[in-house]
Amino acid sequence: MSSAWLLPEHIADVLPHEARRIEELRRLMLDAARAHGHELVMPPLLEHIESLLSGTGHALDLKTFKLVDQLSGRTLGVRADTTPQVARIDAHLLNRVGLTRLCYCGPVLHTRPSGLHGSREPLQFGAETYGHAGLEADLEIIELALECLGRAGIGGLLLDLSDARLLRGVLSCGEVMTDTRHAVEAALAAKDRTAIEDLGAALPPVVRAGLLALVDLYGGADLLVQARHRLPDVPLVRAALDDLDWLARHLHALQPELALGFDLGDMSGQGYYSGARFAIYGRGCTDALARGGRYDDVGAVFGRKRAAVGFSLDLKAVVGGVGFDGRRAAIRAPWSEDPDLRAVVRRLRREGETVVSVLPGHEHEADEFDCDRELVAEQGQWWVRAR
Amino acid sequence: MSSAWLLPEHIADVLPHEARRIEELRRLMLDAARAHGHELVMPPLLEHIESLLSGTGHALDLKTFKLVDQLSGRTLGVRADTTPQVARIDAHLLNRVGLTRLCYCGPVLHTRPSGLHGSREPLQFGAETYGHAGLEADLEIIELALECLGRAGIGGLLLDLSDARLLRGVLSCGEVMTDTRHAVEAALAAKDRTAIEDLGAALPPVVRAGLLALVDLYGGADLLVQARHRLPDVPLVRAALDDLDWLARHLHALQPELALGFDLGDMSGQGYYSGARFAIYGRGCTDALARGGRYDDVGAVFGRKRAAVGFSLDLKAVVGGVGFDGRRAAIRAPWSEDPDLRAVVRRLRREGETVVSVLPGHEHEADEFDCDRELVAEQGQWWVRAR
Repeated sequence: MSSAWLLPEHIADVLPHEARRIEELRRLMLDAARAHGHELVMPPLLEHIESLLSGTGHALDLKTFKLVDQLSGRTLGVRADTTPQVARIDAHLLNRVGLTRLCYCGPVLHTRPSGLHGSREPLQFGAETYGHAGLEADLEIIELALECLGRAGIGGLLLDLSDARLLRGVLSCGEVMTDTRHAVEAALAAKDRTAIEDLGAALPPVVRAGLLALVDLYGGADLLVQARHRLPDVPLVRAALDDLDWLARHLHALQPELALGFDLGDMSGQGYYSGARFAIYGRGCTDALARGGRYDDVGAVFGRKRAAVGFSLDLKAVVGGVGFDGRRAAIRAPWSEDPDLRAVVRRLRREGETVVSVLPGHEHEADEFDCDRELVAEQGQWWVRAR
Repeated sequence: MSSAWLLPEHIADVLPHEARRIEELRRLMLDAARAHGHELVMPPLLEHIESLLSGTGHALDLKTFKLVDQLSGRTLGVRADTTPQVARIDAHLLNRVGLTRLCYCGPVLHTRPSGLHGSREPLQFGAETYGHAGLEADLEIIELALECLGRAGIGGLLLDLSDARLLRGVLSCGEVMTDTRHAVEAALAAKDRTAIEDLGAALPPVVRAGLLALVDLYGGADLLVQARHRLPDVPLVRAALDDLDWLARHLHALQPELALGFDLGDMSGQGYYSGARFAIYGRGCTDALARGGRYDDVGAVFGRKRAAVGFSLDLKAVVGGVGFDGRRAAIRAPWSEDPDLRAVVRRLRREGETVVSVLPGHEHEADEFDCDRELVAEQGQWWVRAR
C-alpha cells in the first residue's frame, strides 16, 4: 500500500496554512451575507437525481457524480451546484409569500475539473434573493458579491455585465435546431469566433450577424450604444439592453471607482440564467472569481415559479488572491499539574488566545504556531512574558 | 415531477433557524480547538477506496458510498469518517517529527443511518493529536472535547471512560476465531448479555467470565477496583486499568464537578481504537454527543506509525442540546437611491449589524429577521430608531 496516500486527480488536501485563510474568508463572507439579510441554509450533499437536475441542463448532468441508494435502490447524485437546491428550499420548504434572501457555503463535487488546474471539489459560497423581479434585487446581489470580495481584501476588481436574453433574442430571429443551439452556446462560451462563423453559414443572415456581434461586443461604457446598432431590434434584446443600461448607471453612481465592462457573448457558468448576469474578475485573472445573475425559472420544477437572482464563488479559488494569512500569534505553556497554571491557560484560551501546551518530552521541538510569548512562573505566580 | 422536492430517507435540508445555530457552534468549536493549538485541515470528500478504508475495518467499509472515477476508472469512496484522512495527512503530507495537533469540520456521508432517527449526512467536527504516546495527550483531548461542548452551553455532561485493550486482553486468554471475535464485538456494542452468554458457551471459561464481566462493568468511581477482581490479570488488562486510573484521578483533580463514570464494555463507534477511549453524554441522552480515544495504529498504512489520540462529534446531533439560538436583531431600511442612506447602511453592515433593505413593493411583508430598529429620515439625516 505504498501509494495509499495518493489522491485522485484534481482532488487535494487543504493544509493548515491555506485552511486557515479559507476559514477566515468563509466567516467574512457569511457575515457579509447576513449583514445584507441573507439567512443561512444547508442543503444536503445527496439528492435524488431528478430533483438535483430538473431544469438545470445537460452540462450539470455530466458534472454530477451518481450513486445508488441502498435504502431505496434509486439513483442519487452528489450536488455539483447548490443553487438549484436553494431554489427548491425556497419553493417548497419555506414557501414564503414575500421576499426571501438565502445564503449557503459548502462543498460540491464535479466528475471533471473545469480547467487544467481546477479542483473537482470547489467550496461553493453563494447568496440568492427570491420573490423580487425588479432590478433592485440584481443590483443588491451584485453589490453583495463585490462586498464579499472586498472584505476578503481583493482589490482591482473588474465587473463584466451580460444578459442571457441577448442570445435567446438573436436565436428567435430564425429557425434554429436544438443541436445547433447547443453548439452555438459552447462556441460562445469558448469565445470561438471561427466556430460561430462555421455554424452561422447554415443560419439565416440576421441570426448569423447577431451571433458574430455577440462575440465582438465586449468593452467599456460605450458598448451598449454599439449593441443597439448591431443586435436585432427584438423585444428580448431591447429588454436586456435596457436592464443592462439601468444596472450600469446605478452601479456607477453607487461605486464610481468600480471598473465596469460588458461581455455580451459571455456564456460561461450555469445554463439556467434567464436575465441579466455578471462575472467579477480579479486584476490579471482570466477566470472569474464570482459569477451570478437572474434565473427566474429554476424553482418551477418544484411547483413554484419565483423571481430569483443570486451569485456564487469557489472559496478555494478565491483564497489565492487574498491579502491576509489569518496567522495569529500564540503563547507557549509548559505541561504541569499545577492548578494555578491550568486556570491561567483556561482563561487565556477563553479570551481567544492560542495557548500551546508543551507535552512532556517535546520541549525542544519546533513550534508550528508563531509563539511570541510564553507562560513562566516567577515568585509563585504565572506570567505571560515575551520570548 | 410533483415529488421532485422529496429527499432520500435520512437526508434533510437544514433550514435557517437550525443552520444559524450550527454555524455558531461550528465557530465556537473551531475556535476552542485553535485556542488549544490544533491547526485546521480540510481533507477531500473523495478518495481512492484503498486509502479511505485501509486499516479501518469492515464496519466503515459498509458505511461508505462508492463511485467510479471517470478520469481514472478507479473506485472512489465518499468519506464516512474524517479521522483516517487526518491520520494520512499527519503521516504523509506534514510528516513532522514532533507533536502535531490538527482539527477539521466538514460533512461525511453514510450509506445507512446509525439509528432510527440518525442522519446519513453528519457534520463531523473533530480534533486529533499525533506524536505523543503519554496520557497527557489523552487528558488534553478529553478536556478539549468537554470545553467544546461546554462552550456550546451544554450542561450536565457525563464522561464515560473505557479502553480498547480490555477486550483484546480478555480474548487473548484463549483461542477465539475471527468470526466469533466480530460477533462478540457486535454483542458488546449492543450490550446484549444473552448473546454474550450464548457465544461464551463455546469459549474457554476465563474468556467467557471476562466477557460477562465487561458487560456488567459500568458505574462510578469504585468500578476500577471491581474490574481488577473480575477481569483476567494479563498485561493488556493491567495496562488499561492503570491508564484509566491515571486519567480518572487527573480529570477529577482538574474538574471536580464533572460527572465521571466507566463503561468498560463500550464498543460503539469506530473499530480503530487501540487504548483508552471515552464517550460524553448530555443529561438524559442515550446516544453519546462525542466519542474519542487513542488509535495509535491508523497512520501505519500510510507508512508511518504514530501515537494518536482524538475525538469527534456530529454538529447536527449536538445542536439539539444547545442553549442559544444565534438569532440577532436587525435593522429595517427602505430602498432608496439616496447616497446618504447607502453610506449609513454600508457602515452599519461593516460594524456587524444586519440591515434588511425593503425592496420596492415589499413594504408590507412579514420580516424574517427580528427587526427591532429601523432607518428613518428626519431633518435631512438618516437615524436608527427603535420600532
